[in-house]
Amino acid sequence: MSNTRISNFAVTGLTLSLICFALARHGLFGQSVDAREADRAAINRVLHSQQDAWNRGDVDAFLVGYWQSPELTFSGSSGVSRGWDGVLARYKKSYPDRAAMGQLDFSGLEFRFLGADAALVLGQWHLKREQGDIGGVFTLVWQRFPNGWKIIHDHTSATS
Amino acid sequence: MSNTRISNFAVTGLTLSLICFALARHGLFGQSVDAREADRAAINRVLHSQQDAWNRGDVDAFLVGYWQSPELTFSGSSGVSRGWDGVLARYKKSYPDRAAMGQLDFSGLEFRFLGADAALVLGQWHLKREQGDIGGVFTLVWQRFPNGWKIIHDHTSATS
Repeated sequence: MSNTRISNFAVTGLTLSLICFALARHGLFGQSVDAREADRAAINRVLHSQQDAWNRGDVDAFLVGYWQSPELTFSGSSGVSRGWDGVLARYKKSYPDRAAMGQLDFSGLEFRFLGADAALVLGQWHLKREQGDIGGVFTLVWQRFPNGWKIIHDHTSATS
Repeated sequence: MSNTRISNFAVTGLTLSLICFALARHGLFGQSVDAREADRAAINRVLHSQQDAWNRGDVDAFLVGYWQSPELTFSGSSGVSRGWDGVLARYKKSYPDRAAMGQLDFSGLEFRFLGADAALVLGQWHLKREQGDIGGVFTLVWQRFPNGWKIIHDHTSATS
């Protein structure tokens, strides 16, 4: 094999590698890696805002992370709560005061994107309280709206 | 206004209506209504197969509805189980025999599609058992694969 042919192979190989890298970076089958990182950061910001709102006792601000729609659903130990107002009422009933609310901590977040405009986020929740800590796991389904990523369904349960 | 002009308006209106109907039927922003009905039927078939498998005591056949992957997740009262083998082991530990399995009934199914290839399905589960009935709610996240729709995440909890 001549040096020219080897050199041609090398150039072709390098070009193909760069094309593959570019395709992977910009998402062979969907969103670019950069866009996914931005989406993940946006969802993380909502979760941090929720945690901060809870820890200052502001359930209404906590609810801002949820889709403000009658179609919002929350599944838990009392079955399915429906609509933004229903979910707010459930939170206020289950956590009537600061003592019941305690200090919230989310951990172990795992992200999976489902197409361009939906995401599944799993994680653990823990409430540190004088009346006894509680905690468990949650499943959040997110959807991208013109005003940002919102939780369209929450399934939260306690671990035994 | 002449009869010809009125007739032209009527024809134009009818044409526009037909175009709108066709666009809506074939999905302005995604899958066609027919495709969605087929997807919903396919997911329903998986759930019916699962119910039948459970009720003849065949946990392995019940598991066929799940994504056979190490990335499969199941959230419940013992936290998050991971991978197809992990989820199978959890079911076999929680329901060691036919008496513990009882008779399974799914009800109140609600479907929401998340893009072309993912779906969220909520529902209730009930186990009729001599040792005491149990039941609750579930959240299933589905993804379309070359071999059909599979559950990629299950969050199941009991209602109190």
